[in-house]
Amino acid sequence: MNSDLILLGHGSGGRLSHQLLNELIIPLLGTDSPDGGNDAAVLEPVPGRLAFTTDAFVVDPVFFPGGTIGSLAVHGTVNDLAMMGARPLYLSVSLIIEEGFGKSDLEIILRDMRRAADLAGVRIVTGDTKVVPRGAADKIFITTSGIGAINHEFMIHGANAQPGDAIIINGTIGDHGIAVMAGREGLSLGTEILSDSAALNGLTEAIINEAGHHLHVLRDPTRGGVATTIKEIALQSGVAITLREEALPINPAVRGVCSILGLDLLFVANEGKLLAFVAPEAAQRTLECIRRHPLGSEAAIIGTVREGEPGRVIMETVVGGMRGVEMLSGEQLPRIC
Amino acid sequence: MNSDLILLGHGSGGRLSHQLLNELIIPLLGTDSPDGGNDAAVLEPVPGRLAFTTDAFVVDPVFFPGGTIGSLAVHGTVNDLAMMGARPLYLSVSLIIEEGFGKSDLEIILRDMRRAADLAGVRIVTGDTKVVPRGAADKIFITTSGIGAINHEFMIHGANAQPGDAIIINGTIGDHGIAVMAGREGLSLGTEILSDSAALNGLTEAIINEAGHHLHVLRDPTRGGVATTIKEIALQSGVAITLREEALPINPAVRGVCSILGLDLLFVANEGKLLAFVAPEAAQRTLECIRRHPLGSEAAIIGTVREGEPGRVIMETVVGGMRGVEMLSGEQLPRIC
Repeated sequence: MNSDLILLGHGSGGRLSHQLLNELIIPLLGTDSPDGGNDAAVLEPVPGRLAFTTDAFVVDPVFFPGGTIGSLAVHGTVNDLAMMGARPLYLSVSLIIEEGFGKSDLEIILRDMRRAADLAGVRIVTGDTKVVPRGAADKIFITTSGIGAINHEFMIHGANAQPGDAIIINGTIGDHGIAVMAGREGLSLGTEILSDSAALNGLTEAIINEAGHHLHVLRDPTRGGVATTIKEIALQSGVAITLREEALPINPAVRGVCSILGLDLLFVANEGKLLAFVAPEAAQRTLECIRRHPLGSEAAIIGTVREGEPGRVIMETVVGGMRGVEMLSGEQLPRIC
Repeated sequence: MNSDLILLGHGSGGRLSHQLLNELIIPLLGTDSPDGGNDAAVLEPVPGRLAFTTDAFVVDPVFFPGGTIGSLAVHGTVNDLAMMGARPLYLSVSLIIEEGFGKSDLEIILRDMRRAADLAGVRIVTGDTKVVPRGAADKIFITTSGIGAINHEFMIHGANAQPGDAIIINGTIGDHGIAVMAGREGLSLGTEILSDSAALNGLTEAIINEAGHHLHVLRDPTRGGVATTIKEIALQSGVAITLREEALPINPAVRGVCSILGLDLLFVANEGKLLAFVAPEAAQRTLECIRRHPLGSEAAIIGTVREGEPGRVIMETVVGGMRGVEMLSGEQLPRIC
C-alpha cells in the first residue's frame, strides 16, 4: 500500500481521518484554534453588516501556470467578499478528494491555500474532508465559504450602475482562462502565460477609500468573462453600456492564443480582475489610484454607462463598427475555476 | 437534446447558468434577496459570538429512505452549529453537478433543502453551481456552510467533559448508515429502515435552557458513529469514559441488519442524534427534557465520564464483560454522508 495515497478511510471520520486532519490539514492550514476538533469554529463578534459567500472550485488541471486549485479557491472567495465592499475575515474549506489522490499533491495545494490566505489577511477557521471512491470525482474539488465585515455605508452592488459611470478594469483580460487551458492541453505557447489569480481585497479597499460614494458597482469578471459580467450589471441596473474594444488591456501572448483557437477573449475567465463603476467626477482619480496599486498598473477605462434600452451592451469595435454584446452562450472552456 | 438534463453550459457562468439560477435554483431555495445576482449576501449585524462551519455531502444514493442529499446537507450543517450551542441563522449552498444529471432530480433535491431549511428556521442566502463533465463527479455533491449566533456564555465544547458527567443520547443509533446502505444496495429488508436525518437545533435549545452551565459537551455522532465520537471527546477532554452496552437504544430492524452483515453499530453514522454530557446533578431532568421533545422520546443515559487514563473508553457489555472502544479504523460504509 502506497502511503502517499489518500484512501477511502481518510474520509471515514475515524482513525485515518484524524491522522490526516491532525498531521496534514490542520497544521498546514493553521486552523489549530482552541476550537480544533469541534463541529464549528467560534468567532469573536463581528461589528456591522456581514457579507457571506461560497464558491466551489473544480478547475482542471489542479496545478496550472500561475496557481493551483488551492490559491484559486482562496482568491475566488476573498474576491467575492471584496466585491461587496467587505473586508474578508474568515474562510471555511471543504475538500472532496478522489481515492488515490497523492498526499504530496494535497500538501502542495494546502500550502498554497495557506499562503494565499495569509497574503490576503484572512483566517481559515473550519473545514471538512470527504473521500469518494476512485472515479466518483476527478482528483480534488474545493469549496470555500467566507465571512466579511462591511464597515462603510456605501451602496456597492450590481443594481447600482448609473448613467455616466466610467467602467474601469484593473488590467489585462483572459489571462486565467488561457493559462488553465494551456496547462490542461500541455500547450507549448512559446511564451508562458500565467493566471492572474490574486486576492483583490487590498485593491478594493484602496478604491473605496478613493472613490467613496462615487463607487457604484464592483464585480470580478470570472466565469463568463467581461462580456457576461457587464451584461449582468446592465440588466440588474436597467441601464445601457458601451464598451470600447481598443481600450481593453490585452496581453499580446493571450491575444495570439485566442486568435489561433478562435476564442473570444471577452468571454474568457479572469481571477484577479475587477470592474469598478465610478461616477464621472471621480473616474480619473480612481483610475490613477488603481494604477498605483501592484495589481492595477495596466488599469484602463473600458466603457461608459448610458441611459438607453435596459440591459443593452454595445461594443465600439477597433475598426469603428458597433456590435451587440451578449452573455456567454454554451460553454467555451469548461472547468476553468 | 433532452431538456431535462444538466449541461456543461449550465456551469459556464453565462446564459444557461443564469437560466438555471433564475428559473430553478433561486426560486426553489428562496435566496431571492435584494442581493440576488451579487457575489455575496449582505446580512444584518449578528450580535454576540459567531459559529461558522462547513460540510461536504457526497452521499450515495442521493435519494435514500428517510431523506435526500438535500435535506441531509441542511441538517448536517445546522447540527454542527447547534452542537456549539449556536442558533443557526444562515446557510450557503454550493452544488457540484455531473453533466447529464436530471433537472427534475435536482428540483426534488432543492425542494427538500428548502423544506429542511424552513423547518430548521434557517435561511439559504447565497450559493454557487458548477457543472463537471460526465464521469468527473458522481451525480451531485453539495457543500453547505452555516453561520450561527451564540447568545449565551456557557462553555460547550469537546474539551469540557468532566468526571461524573452523564452521557445522554436522544434515541436509537445507526439508523442513518443502515438506511443509506439499504438504499444503495437495493436491499429488501422486510421492514423499512429510515434515516434519522433531522435538524437538532430545537432540541439543543431546549437542552441548553434546561441544563444551563451543567451542560458540558454537545456532539452529533455522524461519520465514525458513537464510538468514534465518544473516543474523540475522551481524548479532547483528557478523561476516561465508560459506556453501558445494554443502555444503547437500538431499533430492532437495524440490529438485525447489522448482525447479518457483521457491522458494528457503534461505528455506524447517525444524522439526527446528539450526545449531551451533563453534570450528574442535572442529568435526570435533562434526560426528561429530551424525552419530551419529538426527537428524543427514546433518549437514554448510555455512559459516564470517569477520572482515569485520558482517552480510554470502556464498554460494559451485555454479558457483563468489558471491552475497549477505539475509533473507526478504515472505512466501514463509504459515502454515508
